[in-house]
Amino acid sequence: MELGARAYDIVIGRGVLNQAGEHLSARLPGARVAIITDDTVAGIHLPALAASLDAADIGHTAITVPAGESSKCFAQFERLCDAVLAARMERGDALVALGGGVVGDLAGFVAASVRRGMAFVQIPTTLLAQVDSSVGGKTGINSRHGKNLIGAFYQPTLVLADTAVLDTLPGRDFRAGYAEVAKYGLLGDAGFFAWLETNWRAVFAGGPERDEAIARSCQAKADVVVEDERESGRRALLNLGHTFGHALESAVDYATERLVHGEGVAIGMMLAHEYSARLGLIGADVVERVRVHLTEVGLPTRIDQIPGQMPPADTLMDIIAQDKKVSRGALTFILSRGIGDAFVEKGVEAAGVRAFLEEKLAR
Amino acid sequence: MELGARAYDIVIGRGVLNQAGEHLSARLPGARVAIITDDTVAGIHLPALAASLDAADIGHTAITVPAGESSKCFAQFERLCDAVLAARMERGDALVALGGGVVGDLAGFVAASVRRGMAFVQIPTTLLAQVDSSVGGKTGINSRHGKNLIGAFYQPTLVLADTAVLDTLPGRDFRAGYAEVAKYGLLGDAGFFAWLETNWRAVFAGGPERDEAIARSCQAKADVVVEDERESGRRALLNLGHTFGHALESAVDYATERLVHGEGVAIGMMLAHEYSARLGLIGADVVERVRVHLTEVGLPTRIDQIPGQMPPADTLMDIIAQDKKVSRGALTFILSRGIGDAFVEKGVEAAGVRAFLEEKLAR
Repeated sequence: MELGARAYDIVIGRGVLNQAGEHLSARLPGARVAIITDDTVAGIHLPALAASLDAADIGHTAITVPAGESSKCFAQFERLCDAVLAARMERGDALVALGGGVVGDLAGFVAASVRRGMAFVQIPTTLLAQVDSSVGGKTGINSRHGKNLIGAFYQPTLVLADTAVLDTLPGRDFRAGYAEVAKYGLLGDAGFFAWLETNWRAVFAGGPERDEAIARSCQAKADVVVEDERESGRRALLNLGHTFGHALESAVDYATERLVHGEGVAIGMMLAHEYSARLGLIGADVVERVRVHLTEVGLPTRIDQIPGQMPPADTLMDIIAQDKKVSRGALTFILSRGIGDAFVEKGVEAAGVRAFLEEKLAR
Repeated sequence: MELGARAYDIVIGRGVLNQAGEHLSARLPGARVAIITDDTVAGIHLPALAASLDAADIGHTAITVPAGESSKCFAQFERLCDAVLAARMERGDALVALGGGVVGDLAGFVAASVRRGMAFVQIPTTLLAQVDSSVGGKTGINSRHGKNLIGAFYQPTLVLADTAVLDTLPGRDFRAGYAEVAKYGLLGDAGFFAWLETNWRAVFAGGPERDEAIARSCQAKADVVVEDERESGRRALLNLGHTFGHALESAVDYATERLVHGEGVAIGMMLAHEYSARLGLIGADVVERVRVHLTEVGLPTRIDQIPGQMPPADTLMDIIAQDKKVSRGALTFILSRGIGDAFVEKGVEAAGVRAFLEEKLAR
């Protein structure tokens, strides 16, 4: 990740978790480590990380939070800051996030805030975290006014993405992460999307194609982030499918048994392409290619695939209007001019979107 | 403040509070404003700020915290973040800190964290805040493990230092702020210290010399901060007198009726010069000049001027060892080679400092 003085490496491969000690010693000599993880991941991957740190003679302590989105809260933020300070961590010591996006976002905000910034290492254990949340420096917690509304832009010193840990990831979680992989193709790399159409089975199976897909996704995200670290312009492209997706997640109260983030993104990407077609930006053939690929990997593409009752279009529009990507009241959407050719459209007319959603909900 | 893309202006002068609306309109056109202040300052200066914003047609809302250090806590941080979001502030809107160091530190951390960073304007109402805490981008709250241990480096968009508001500041608070003014002379500008020896009465009285002293102090701090924004080296010079000073503040449990920060800094600067003399770095004449000036402006220079019982040297040493400026266990002090010639000494031997403090406490 080429961010000048804050440049850092993303190491991707099978088994890199077992080399964590070596990587840390090389980049942060003499640092002690506070590991933040959740109670599910702790049972599966913490022993391997601890063993690797022991082998490299790195002192470490682990702090665990309950698994799940509800840990991204002020109370856990305070508790973790206190626990890191109680462990006498100094500014040159490292905070390691071992887990998925929740752990990475929460631990990153703690790392940004304790002593106004400690060294921070991400060891993402889900596909979603490996290709999305661990790259780019966004950290944060939720507020009662919405998700990720409190946080910091804070870059890690190192990211270790062990692609073998994904072997034990539930299929639904892998697919949800894959939605973000497909997103990189759709937003800016038609060649990558075509490659995924051919190779997705190998990506799911865990061959070298998986490592390649993750590396290309991280590179795609890195390219955008380097151009626009603090999200004033081009970085918004990464929100392809996310405005609709977040509204759907919020509409089901983030009940993950109904909809997880990546599923919301898949449906949202589908809606963004359908809406682009309606505006005459793309043809039905492009929409069909998106639908076919998302469907064949097992992702949902329609609102009516979400179990249970959905709220009316007005409610979804209210949620969209409250979304943090609103700029001074105007609606901003990521639309498409073709596979690999998404763009940021500010000032999208709310009435058109509302009518479109009403139609989709009526089906 | 020349910080590249994050450069900002510090506007200093009598009456600038009444021009706040114009300054904000010029730099943040269209922004709405959330004012964070304390219940004491709100009664004195909020009406003038509100009137100036009204005159410039800037929408605003005010959020008040109790006056005093205890507001720099997680609970107020959470409450303020929620209140700013409840007021529907967007990333381009501005958070204005109206008050002393407590309000500036707390509001700055809120501004850094809400939506991962809102525009931030400081309107410091104490001398200490005008010459120190409002300049340099350090924000934060206290933890039960120590002061300012949770926070962010976050630069404001604008600082408005109205030197007329200091007319109503209690004398003790003005003197305490003056300790930081004298510090800039002592640490790096012998000419400024000599100027203060001649002109301090006019600085206290509120003539143009006051504006000049504040401007020179801000410039001195800015010069150091620009060189070392994130405090990895030279910025530590600003801690002249602060290692001893913080230990004394902590030893009295931050009871401000016994010792306020600036008084601790004054005694701490005196101790730093005395210890420098003991190490043979400066002569008794330099120590005497420091003592005479601090004494004539009415600042304390000896530990025994702090009312009440002080703890033994061992306790002070424990506090110093826990201080966040400890680097991997070694003691770091700011020492002096002469007026205007302070330097960072890492690896100061604890035994010598301990013996020195024992002597000072025995007097």
